[in-house]
Amino acid sequence: MINKLIENIKKTNAPIVVGLDPMLNYVPKHIQDKAYAEFGETLEGAAEAIWQFNKGIVDATYDLIPAVKPQIAMYEQFGLPGLAAFKKTVDYCHEKGLVVIGDIKRGDIGSTSAAYAVGHIGKVKVGSKTFAPFDEDFVTVNPYLGSDGVNPFIKVCQEENKGLFILVKTSNPSSGEFQDQLIGGRPLYELVGEQVAKWGETCMGDTYSNIGAVVGATYPEMGKVLRKIMPKTFILVPGYGAQGGKGKDLVHFFNEDGLGAIINSSRGIIAAYKQETYAQFGEENYADASRAAVVAMQKDIAGALG
Amino acid sequence: MINKLIENIKKTNAPIVVGLDPMLNYVPKHIQDKAYAEFGETLEGAAEAIWQFNKGIVDATYDLIPAVKPQIAMYEQFGLPGLAAFKKTVDYCHEKGLVVIGDIKRGDIGSTSAAYAVGHIGKVKVGSKTFAPFDEDFVTVNPYLGSDGVNPFIKVCQEENKGLFILVKTSNPSSGEFQDQLIGGRPLYELVGEQVAKWGETCMGDTYSNIGAVVGATYPEMGKVLRKIMPKTFILVPGYGAQGGKGKDLVHFFNEDGLGAIINSSRGIIAAYKQETYAQFGEENYADASRAAVVAMQKDIAGALG
Repeated sequence: MINKLIENIKKTNAPIVVGLDPMLNYVPKHIQDKAYAEFGETLEGAAEAIWQFNKGIVDATYDLIPAVKPQIAMYEQFGLPGLAAFKKTVDYCHEKGLVVIGDIKRGDIGSTSAAYAVGHIGKVKVGSKTFAPFDEDFVTVNPYLGSDGVNPFIKVCQEENKGLFILVKTSNPSSGEFQDQLIGGRPLYELVGEQVAKWGETCMGDTYSNIGAVVGATYPEMGKVLRKIMPKTFILVPGYGAQGGKGKDLVHFFNEDGLGAIINSSRGIIAAYKQETYAQFGEENYADASRAAVVAMQKDIAGALG
Repeated sequence: MINKLIENIKKTNAPIVVGLDPMLNYVPKHIQDKAYAEFGETLEGAAEAIWQFNKGIVDATYDLIPAVKPQIAMYEQFGLPGLAAFKKTVDYCHEKGLVVIGDIKRGDIGSTSAAYAVGHIGKVKVGSKTFAPFDEDFVTVNPYLGSDGVNPFIKVCQEENKGLFILVKTSNPSSGEFQDQLIGGRPLYELVGEQVAKWGETCMGDTYSNIGAVVGATYPEMGKVLRKIMPKTFILVPGYGAQGGKGKDLVHFFNEDGLGAIINSSRGIIAAYKQETYAQFGEENYADASRAAVVAMQKDIAGALG
C-alpha cells in the first residue's frame, strides 16, 4: 500500500494528507440546518451533517491530494450514526482514488490487536463468508504495549497489502512527558523509532516500508534525528498549520529523494473558510476555501523542498 | 463512579470483573446457527450471535459480580453491526445493575481525546440537544501521549461522575519492551503510575479515586510496587486465569482494607465450557459453566485475601 501512496504523491506532487476531522462547529450552518431538517437534532442528524461536509471537501480537493486521514474519534463521538458516517467517508474517498489513513490509534494485547486489525484493514470471517468491515488502507497504531500488540497489525498488512503509521513522537504539547524520557541517555521515542524501523523490515514495499511512523511537525529537530534512525520509514507528520508547523520546518522529515514524509493538515484545510485568509469565500463556499488552502499548502511544502 | 463500583464489590464480596470479549469461536454452535438463520452469515449475523452469547452470560452471572468489561475490539471487528452489539451489551448490563468498564484503550491529542471522552463516558451536543452515545461508566485510556491526552477524559469524569483505568503495566508478554525501560534507574511504568496517582487526586471518590490504573496480573512483583506508588488508585488487573495469574499471586494488588483492586477474567469465564473442569455442562449450557467459573474465581480470590 505504501507503493500506492507514493504513486499518488508523485502524481499530485503533493506529499500532503487532508485530515477529515469534522467538528460540528466547523460545519457551515446551511449544511447543519438541512441535516437537522431531515433527521432532527439527533446523532443521525449530526452524522449526516459531517458526512455532507466531508463530501463537499473531498469533491473540491480529491484531484490535488494523494490521501485523506479521517480521525475516527470525531465520528465515534456521535455513536453508531457517527461511525456509519466514518465508513461512508472511507468508501467515498476510495471511489475518488484516494488512499485512506484511518487515524484510529488502536493498540492492545495480541488477540485484541488482531481483532482491531481485521476490523480496520483486514477481513473478518463469519461462518463461510469474509467481510472487510471498515476497509481503510493504513491505520495509526499506539506502540505502548510493545511488539506483541503491534505484530497482529503487521501480519494483516503483509496478508492484505495494507500499512500502518505507528506513534513515535506525537505533536501535542505534553508528548514529551513519557516519550522524551531518557533511557541510557536517549529519549524513549528514539527507541520506539528504532523498533518501528525493525518492524518495517518485515513488510517492505518497493522503496519504503508499509510500516510508517507518526512524528509531530511541532518537533522538527526530533524529526531530523528520527529521519536518520528510520531511513525506509514513511513519516506521517501531523501538526502543520493550525498546530504550529510550517513548510520550511518540515524539510528534514523528508529523504533526499524528496519522499519519506506526508504532511497532515486538518483544521487548516477543512475549516479554512473560518480563517481571515480565506474569509472571502464565505461559509457557503467552504469547500472552495478548502481547495485554496490545499493549493497554498502544496506550494508551501513544494517550495520548501525545492 | 468509583463509589458505585466499591459498593457493588462489597455487596457481592467479589472484586472481580467479567471480560465480555466474545470471539466467534467461543459462541456455541446453536447460538451461531440461530443468528445466521435469521441474519445470514453476515456482520449482522455475527453481531446477533455475540449479543445473544453475552446476554446468556450476563443473565447467569449478574447477581454474583459487580462489573463487566466489554472489550470493544471484539465488537469493532464486526463493523457497525458489531458496535451496535457493544452498545446493546452496555445498556443491558446497566439494566442489570452492573458497572460497565468499556475497554477501549483510546488516547490521542487533546481535542481528539475530548471527542472520545464525550462519546464514551460523556455527552455530545447536537444543536440544542445532548446525547450519551456509548454511555460506559469507566473506560480504559492509553497514556503514551501524556497529560494533555488524558486531561479531557478526566474533565468528563469530573463533570459526569465517571471513571478511567489508565494503562500502566499491561499483562502481555512484550509489555516490558517500552514500559520497563529504565529512566533514572526506575522503569517507565513507575513514572506513569506516579502520574496516574497525581491525575487521580483531581477526581476523588470517597476513599479511592475515579482515576484507576491497569496493571497485569502476570506481573505481581510490579503490582506490589505500584500498589504503594498509587495508594488511592483502584487497579484493574487483567491476565487472571487464561493469561496465567492466580488468586494467591494477586494479594499485593489490594490494600489492607481488602479493596483497591478488581481482577478481570475474560476467556476463563465466558468460554469456561471449553475447559475440562466445566466440560460436564456441555456447550448448550455454556452460561451455567460461566456461572460456575465465576463462583470458583470468587472463592479463589476471597480465599487468597482472607
